Amino acid sequence: MSYRRPTVGIVGAGQLARMMAQAAIPLDIRIVLLAACADDGAAQVVPEVIVGAPDDPSALAALAERCDVMTFDHELVPPEILANIEAQGHRIWPSSSSLALAQDKRRQRLELSAAGFSVPAFANLDRPEDMAEFGERHGWPIVIKASRGGYDGRGVWIAGSLEEAESVWNGAQQSGTVLLAEELLPLDLELAVLVARRPSGQVAVYPPVETVQRAGICRELRVPANVRANLVAEAVRIAREIAERIGIVGIMAVEFFVSRGMLYVNELAPRPHNSGHWTIEGAVTSQFEQHLRAVLDLPLGGTDLTGDAVVTINLLGDGSGSDPRIRLGTALAAGKAHVHFYGKEARAGRKIGHVTAIADSVKSADSQARRVIDALTGNLPA
Amino acid sequence: MSYRRPTVGIVGAGQLARMMAQAAIPLDIRIVLLAACADDGAAQVVPEVIVGAPDDPSALAALAERCDVMTFDHELVPPEILANIEAQGHRIWPSSSSLALAQDKRRQRLELSAAGFSVPAFANLDRPEDMAEFGERHGWPIVIKASRGGYDGRGVWIAGSLEEAESVWNGAQQSGTVLLAEELLPLDLELAVLVARRPSGQVAVYPPVETVQRAGICRELRVPANVRANLVAEAVRIAREIAERIGIVGIMAVEFFVSRGMLYVNELAPRPHNSGHWTIEGAVTSQFEQHLRAVLDLPLGGTDLTGDAVVTINLLGDGSGSDPRIRLGTALAAGKAHVHFYGKEARAGRKIGHVTAIADSVKSADSQARRVIDALTGNLPA
Repeated sequence: MSYRRPTVGIVGAGQLARMMAQAAIPLDIRIVLLAACADDGAAQVVPEVIVGAPDDPSALAALAERCDVMTFDHELVPPEILANIEAQGHRIWPSSSSLALAQDKRRQRLELSAAGFSVPAFANLDRPEDMAEFGERHGWPIVIKASRGGYDGRGVWIAGSLEEAESVWNGAQQSGTVLLAEELLPLDLELAVLVARRPSGQVAVYPPVETVQRAGICRELRVPANVRANLVAEAVRIAREIAERIGIVGIMAVEFFVSRGMLYVNELAPRPHNSGHWTIEGAVTSQFEQHLRAVLDLPLGGTDLTGDAVVTINLLGDGSGSDPRIRLGTALAAGKAHVHFYGKEARAGRKIGHVTAIADSVKSADSQARRVIDALTGNLPA
Repeated sequence: MSYRRPTVGIVGAGQLARMMAQAAIPLDIRIVLLAACADDGAAQVVPEVIVGAPDDPSALAALAERCDVMTFDHELVPPEILANIEAQGHRIWPSSSSLALAQDKRRQRLELSAAGFSVPAFANLDRPEDMAEFGERHGWPIVIKASRGGYDGRGVWIAGSLEEAESVWNGAQQSGTVLLAEELLPLDLELAVLVARRPSGQVAVYPPVETVQRAGICRELRVPANVRANLVAEAVRIAREIAERIGIVGIMAVEFFVSRGMLYVNELAPRPHNSGHWTIEGAVTSQFEQHLRAVLDLPLGGTDLTGDAVVTINLLGDGSGSDPRIRLGTALAAGKAHVHFYGKEARAGRKIGHVTAIADSVKSADSQARRVIDALTGNLPA
């Protein structure tokens, strides 16, 4: 009898699907993609591609028919369609209900807070007067967030005054965007913890990573994070507890604020995440392999670092019309950091790749990765 | 202007092409395969596949048209067809002449010996009396090899007497196989050194790996090799000199015998090689990425180990009809060694995967890898 490869269907064909496909090869896991466009990053490197929209019930059903378990490159999938597919007996991890929670920041905050996890002070903004009330209670500026659909700084505003808040409100009314308010915490730094859980219950947690953000976009990852050991232990404990409480299956990133030495849970992302790209070379098991193992209910892998320190720097398009990929040769000559391209055009502000360096200190890894990024962006001193 | 990805065409679609395809993803290198069968290991994971024979001139020409540089998963390609394609201005690395040298063991021995490298005593077997003469001069048993086409122990015979040698000779006469004889050295151990060279001349050499063979098939790789430092340095020097002398482009494996503390060059393989699989997790740059960089004339990467010691054990089909892939879960639970499957059915004696462990000693890496191999082959104690 010939062997039947386990098959994972992925909704979406961006860089996360692309890196999952790469991780699937050694384990002989078959990948089928549902790609919005035939030339999406992952569709360039996977033979089996269904072209269709991630909110098209028939495209999702076709993907479900062709795989043992369905998972995601992104969260822009209507949970109610997924619930229908689950009801027909197909496995979907993360489940439609985990995905619904991830999509809804209001619900996330409420449930995490109700469960006793520290989160920033927050309130739903349902009436214009809710903004004034929140600003008075917590002080200006306040953070306003779209409850759904934001990423890379989109859907997040800092309102310095009631007038600014009202301007956000008016824009949101026009687009039908549901809002919440959040206190603006003074940040020591931001952390993320990747946690993986499989259906049978095994959990694996990665060491916390320090995420360096600029204009709402994650620019750099540093491991070990520059925080005290008790904070590391607490972040790991919280990530594990959240994963078990919501019964997540697959990788989940738990993003934290660290403010005045205290941890606050910011957001959950139930899939491989930008904050985990350091694990490809920097951890015993990459987040992409770990996610595939988890959704197929295979034993999880080790999460230890492969070196003393790991730094990953994201490569962003600068909109100059010059594609960093033409400088690959210069970059490879600039150092031994690992270069990853996502197969995407270099539009301004778009994450199009990353670079990872492993060294004996964060400082040294940072300067190695930086040199290669500078070479890719044309900023290397001659 | 949109970016044009560099494209590498690979003749053959076995595990070497499959692992090259995996390494190509992060560097955004496009791969086009010439596969004998549409379901070959690499063809399962690469979207662009030409199905055709590796000795079909029109299939090879079609591959050349679709890539910037052509390279190889195996050596079973007629060099004269490649020379024609080169003459039309296509780049092929390793070149048709390097490939011709690799295919011809008589010529390899002669050229290496003429260039002053230590090789085992050898002679062409052109007449029946050549065997008696060689046996008398060097003592029985002698090694008889087919000059072309052997691998994994095929095409190599140990003849204990003239009678046994004559039986090999008679078989070879019937199949038209050209033979050479070689002294049977008492082996301390066997080594291989991977060396990479790019057209512009840069050379990178990996640390020597100890290759453990059984019945002519490589079963295990150990790094660092258990030899004195001066032997390591000499093996590295010889590999570099051979690469420069023959002007190889790409990865080449130089296989050595160590006999009574002395190095003898055995064979050259001008492509990623089984003896280099440890580099995927065990070296800063894997042999597959290194090969792609070299054939595209990109700067070569670091060759340092990522840990203290690396052991790779090959997974062979046992012909029992039971496919080791069904035991993936048990294997992943058995340890943190990295599992690689090649997408091949488990026919007896066929290399169908490998397992790599990194640890603080060869002994510890060996026992970690062994445990996972035992789990895959169903030999793990309960």
